[in-house]
Amino acid sequence: MKSVHISELAWPEYDARVRDGRTPVLIPVGALEQHGPHMSMNPDVLLPTAISERVADRIGALVAPPIAYGYKSQQKSGGGNHMPGTTSLDGMTVTCTIRDVLKELARHGVRRTVLVNGHYENSAFIVEGVDLAQRELRWDGIRDFSTVVLSYWDFVTQDAIDAIYQGEFPGWAVEHGGVLETSLMLHLHPHLVDMHKVCDHAPAQFPPYDFFPIKPEWTPASGCLSSAKRASAQHGETLLKVCVDGISKELMTAFD
Amino acid sequence: MKSVHISELAWPEYDARVRDGRTPVLIPVGALEQHGPHMSMNPDVLLPTAISERVADRIGALVAPPIAYGYKSQQKSGGGNHMPGTTSLDGMTVTCTIRDVLKELARHGVRRTVLVNGHYENSAFIVEGVDLAQRELRWDGIRDFSTVVLSYWDFVTQDAIDAIYQGEFPGWAVEHGGVLETSLMLHLHPHLVDMHKVCDHAPAQFPPYDFFPIKPEWTPASGCLSSAKRASAQHGETLLKVCVDGISKELMTAFD
Amino acid sequence: MKSVHISELAWPEYDARVRDGRTPVLIPVGALEQHGPHMSMNPDVLLPTAISERVADRIGALVAPPIAYGYKSQQKSGGGNHMPGTTSLDGMTVTCTIRDVLKELARHGVRRTVLVNGHYENSAFIVEGVDLAQRELRWDGIRDFSTVVLSYWDFVTQDAIDAIYQGEFPGWAVEHGGVLETSLMLHLHPHLVDMHKVCDHAPAQFPPYDFFPIKPEWTPASGCLSSAKRASAQHGETLLKVCVDGISKELMTAFD
Amino acid sequence: MKSVHISELAWPEYDARVRDGRTPVLIPVGALEQHGPHMSMNPDVLLPTAISERVADRIGALVAPPIAYGYKSQQKSGGGNHMPGTTSLDGMTVTCTIRDVLKELARHGVRRTVLVNGHYENSAFIVEGVDLAQRELRWDGIRDFSTVVLSYWDFVTQDAIDAIYQGEFPGWAVEHGGVLETSLMLHLHPHLVDMHKVCDHAPAQFPPYDFFPIKPEWTPASGCLSSAKRASAQHGETLLKVCVDGISKELMTAFD
Amino acid sequence: MKSVHISELAWPEYDARVRDGRTPVLIPVGALEQHGPHMSMNPDVLLPTAISERVADRIGALVAPPIAYGYKSQQKSGGGNHMPGTTSLDGMTVTCTIRDVLKELARHGVRRTVLVNGHYENSAFIVEGVDLAQRELRWDGIRDFSTVVLSYWDFVTQDAIDAIYQGEFPGWAVEHGGVLETSLMLHLHPHLVDMHKVCDHAPAQFPPYDFFPIKPEWTPASGCLSSAKRASAQHGETLLKVCVDGISKELMTAFD
Amino acid sequence: MKSVHISELAWPEYDARVRDGRTPVLIPVGALEQHGPHMSMNPDVLLPTAISERVADRIGALVAPPIAYGYKSQQKSGGGNHMPGTTSLDGMTVTCTIRDVLKELARHGVRRTVLVNGHYENSAFIVEGVDLAQRELRWDGIRDFSTVVLSYWDFVTQDAIDAIYQGEFPGWAVEHGGVLETSLMLHLHPHLVDMHKVCDHAPAQFPPYDFFPIKPEWTPASGCLSSAKRASAQHGETLLKVCVDGISKELMTAFD
Repeated sequence: MKSVHISELAWPEYDARVRDGRTPVLIPVGALEQHGPHMSMNPDVLLPTAISERVADRIGALVAPPIAYGYKSQQKSGGGNHMPGTTSLDGMTVTCTIRDVLKELARHGVRRTVLVNGHYENSAFIVEGVDLAQRELRWDGIRDFSTVVLSYWDFVTQDAIDAIYQGEFPGWAVEHGGVLETSLMLHLHPHLVDMHKVCDHAPAQFPPYDFFPIKPEWTPASGCLSSAKRASAQHGETLLKVCVDGISKELMTAFD
Repeated sequence: MKSVHISELAWPEYDARVRDGRTPVLIPVGALEQHGPHMSMNPDVLLPTAISERVADRIGALVAPPIAYGYKSQQKSGGGNHMPGTTSLDGMTVTCTIRDVLKELARHGVRRTVLVNGHYENSAFIVEGVDLAQRELRWDGIRDFSTVVLSYWDFVTQDAIDAIYQGEFPGWAVEHGGVLETSLMLHLHPHLVDMHKVCDHAPAQFPPYDFFPIKPEWTPASGCLSSAKRASAQHGETLLKVCVDGISKELMTAFD
Repeated sequence: MKSVHISELAWPEYDARVRDGRTPVLIPVGALEQHGPHMSMNPDVLLPTAISERVADRIGALVAPPIAYGYKSQQKSGGGNHMPGTTSLDGMTVTCTIRDVLKELARHGVRRTVLVNGHYENSAFIVEGVDLAQRELRWDGIRDFSTVVLSYWDFVTQDAIDAIYQGEFPGWAVEHGGVLETSLMLHLHPHLVDMHKVCDHAPAQFPPYDFFPIKPEWTPASGCLSSAKRASAQHGETLLKVCVDGISKELMTAFD
Repeated sequence: MKSVHISELAWPEYDARVRDGRTPVLIPVGALEQHGPHMSMNPDVLLPTAISERVADRIGALVAPPIAYGYKSQQKSGGGNHMPGTTSLDGMTVTCTIRDVLKELARHGVRRTVLVNGHYENSAFIVEGVDLAQRELRWDGIRDFSTVVLSYWDFVTQDAIDAIYQGEFPGWAVEHGGVLETSLMLHLHPHLVDMHKVCDHAPAQFPPYDFFPIKPEWTPASGCLSSAKRASAQHGETLLKVCVDGISKELMTAFD
Repeated sequence: MKSVHISELAWPEYDARVRDGRTPVLIPVGALEQHGPHMSMNPDVLLPTAISERVADRIGALVAPPIAYGYKSQQKSGGGNHMPGTTSLDGMTVTCTIRDVLKELARHGVRRTVLVNGHYENSAFIVEGVDLAQRELRWDGIRDFSTVVLSYWDFVTQDAIDAIYQGEFPGWAVEHGGVLETSLMLHLHPHLVDMHKVCDHAPAQFPPYDFFPIKPEWTPASGCLSSAKRASAQHGETLLKVCVDGISKELMTAFD
Repeated sequence: MKSVHISELAWPEYDARVRDGRTPVLIPVGALEQHGPHMSMNPDVLLPTAISERVADRIGALVAPPIAYGYKSQQKSGGGNHMPGTTSLDGMTVTCTIRDVLKELARHGVRRTVLVNGHYENSAFIVEGVDLAQRELRWDGIRDFSTVVLSYWDFVTQDAIDAIYQGEFPGWAVEHGGVLETSLMLHLHPHLVDMHKVCDHAPAQFPPYDFFPIKPEWTPASGCLSSAKRASAQHGETLLKVCVDGISKELMTAFD
């Protein structure tokens, strides 16, 4: 039973790994969210999980079970929470899940944790969950518990962007169901992508504000905010590499 | 993209399946919990998921992403929440997760849902989550949304118990990390079981009450509440079959 | 003012009893729930209270005011929460009540507490209340506060079952408004029982799952899940005795 | 089984009484709170319950089980929540209990409810509970559910005050453990009062603000805020009569 | 940047003032609530703020940003929460705001805080917020954090009442939109009062209970509970002086 | 009493303005947060308020009282919540405040609302508050209630950025206490800025992740994330104009 996944270890193996607090634990945080007609609804879970596995392998960390449901999809970054299939939690539910899991890891002895986010909308609720966990751990006298919060796309290098987007990078905001996620899925889980169903349209354009209730007509009919046309398994391989490299490198210094 | 897993469908496929409300959706609800030195910590997720997949396949249902963290392990049914590796949520967090997921499925058009529980301690908090979801859906004017709550071991037949336990069935309460779960894992995920590490001890005996804080000495050192010695892949196959058969049969009438 | 009831003591008397932490405090936890046409709706409060009084008398403990409302009645153990008269709380309300009361007792100096449950559905929410209280008390530096959680029927001996049910014991699950509770009420509060109104029907049978919203036709029209026909004051006396004996004996060792 | 207490009715009797919504239901709301060395800690429950029983009898209402624990005792009206024996709930717990009970009564068909408060500090949290219940009932389409919130001492007439206090009425604020409550208890539950232990001191005097954490020296050592010296069973009889008369009279018009 | 308002200081100035814990911080707590046709809807914020500024100036304290929204207006003290313009928060929202702000001030080093309430209905929810903050601060090891809770009208002297009301003081309860608030506003913010629009009516009379849902006809059509006819800027000046004097004097001893 | 501020209107004036639902209401949402040694701690409230007043004036809207406390300052956008003076709320407190205020406005008849955010960290919690309000309003049968959520800096045009930053725009993320806010404050509230105290340092640089607990050394000692050296009242005038123009223009179409 050799695995980077906590869930695949027997407890004595896990215990031996984490008891002294030095082994980092990575927690992928995702969502069940539509990503267009050409792709399954799980990239926000599968991608941070795949990255976490590789980073864990590289830096001697472990990976906790991914959190499979996330915060409500926002129209300007995920198409909106009115779409079929998108299955979201209230903010407080996300926050409490993060809080509870971190506190339990701390009870096991873990002192270094990394929330590897794959769904933009989770960000603030993850941060709040970390803050609530830190607060309670402080009350328990635990002051050396540390948490990194990151979103994997923030580790895509400018070089990779230049190489892949050829000057037509639309910004991460509208990269929902676009080249980044589709390429990574093509590389990692090709059977969950059908490039024939990619809708080719210009990146979605939005006014500089959010409107509630959602105006469905703002979201392209595909549910994607930009076209995945340019996506390829090879780009996915590149993207995976830069993310894994970048995250591994940062984590190796972050906890010193 | 043919899959019983919602997460592996593109949204238009999912939408076509659930829009009219007739397709049941099964949601495995598990836990990350130690199951002794001979087994990984994920049987409470993997087993209801495996069962859900087979049931879904048989009755034309879909499977939502499993809920991977559950309520706090209790000493008399799971060894206790003081064990390393066991990673649990507050009751309200479990309840809100169930509530939120059910409400979202209802928004998609789903009207028939099944919570397939793999972790005893989840039961009451699942029920409360269902009740809170039903309440809010009622306020939204949705009154035909129905939910089955079940624990898979309740479908093990007396015949199967007789055949497997040969008159020494210790009761489900102490079947934690025992013959049932180990056999199913041996059949389904043999690489996550190491029968050499099974501790052979009599079923744990507890007084007729719970005590807090936990008295760790009540739990066998292994973390298991009964011995998995008798476990085998063949028993696992039998158990899987009776559970899948039983659940499929019941569900086909439950929603009429 | 000599009483086992905290509520009937003046504060200096109470203070003298609990200040050093050795006196256990028993808290009956009940419900307002229909128990058939032949019985009042308060057995879940009156029975654990009567037992608590006798146990307290025997072991030198005190009894806190009973918690009179409980968690939602479940169809397979209490007939269901759709019945007239049944008046239930959300799970979080039950949990917070338990949490708050335990923390206040701890502030007074109490270190040994017993939750004497009379309503099956309360169980998990009591446990969560205990856990939340323990957590906050830990933050207050109180680590020697202990709590027993028990349901009185778990102390009915096999001998008593054999003597009373004559081999037709239907299981506690469907003993709602049946022989156990009716006999105890006949012995303790005969004016709240009318044996002429007992409905005689076979024990209710349920499928191995719960269904929501409730299917009212699953519950016998009486609201009872088994017949109280066999109930008698004498059986009640026997049952009371074995419960009081059993609980007293266990508690005398539990807190050592 | 003839009783004004809901808890003492079988469900068909209760159902027949409340189904059409005309029968008012009174809910005593109390506290477990020290009331000086001369009196038990339950007057805030027993007194509104006794009054509710008599009012119910007079106007054809029913009485729900009293809520036995209340909001935190405040120094200037109850001596403070630092006193031994005083056992209080968080505000949200009180509010949710009120909310949940009212909603359940509404489900039964009840449309006229009265919260009979016996503990000053409960007031605002009762009101919030009523508001939250009304809000949710509105979402359920129930708009004719009404609630009276009252504190029984507000029905003591000026004549009664004059007759009993002879010009030395200290104000309700400091009537904690004083003449009002002690007299009522002497009349209703004389075995729970020991007039020999009454401390005779001038009414407590407080600055025009609250201070946290409590300054214990502000509270008289007895825990009472004024002297019960003048209390008598006869005064209790008078007070009971004016409260029962006053409340009955007001309720008969309130629900028209 | 010389100001009693924390918000108008740069952080190093603030830090120097509060770091040693001796400087009191006053937090005005108000509401957005209708106050009749003759006055703006902000007196409950502006008046405690004006008082706080003057008190702070006198005793060397600072003033935190006022809390501008408060708890739901009650019919017998504020006309009721059904009135247009009245904009209120749930009790838990008020409580959490108070709790959070106090904890942050404590983090800065502040040890002496004063909640200067201008809206009667806030009282209990402020007290609960203080209690929750004290509890968490205790867990953080901070035990010398103190809070005064006051309502400014409790500092109006009998002499001032006699001088202003000439024997016709209706009680604070119905002084909503009446002489007190109108006079203070005339003195402090005359452009927000239009004395031509004052409705002259007798003080509102209410039964000795609250009724929900509100009976709108109980509230005078103006929304005021007594007439502001007698109001004047000169009375306002007097009232401001006695409140500032009284509060300053009390605070100077309260924190010793 | 002519004012764009709701708080400065008498209720009949307000009622006349909003009753038909056409008048938009703008709610500034800010924070009490350090903004360096050269500036007061209230720009996040004062700036969206000033902008809201001007927009309201232009488009015939009203302005609700600003929300003066916001979510926890994040290190990479606000210096971090460890700084003296920064006074923040839990996420749930922000969310509930937004939810409650929106629901009350809806009760008054308002149907068009705008949350004008001045503190980046509030964003997600505002959105959640809007979603919870919309949900409850839907249960109340109100489906035409709409909300715009915006942050004012998103309306600064590229032309303005070019003119002011001369090609050295560091990005909004590190514009905390920088040119934008300082210029606006110089134009609107010059007495709250002291340009002599501006620290001149390069924009703060952060790794591509957040770390908890905060590493204080990441934040420049000033608390600012970039230098305000380039700030001027004239730039402030320009910035105010483009924000007011942009927001007014967008709002005039948003609600159609």
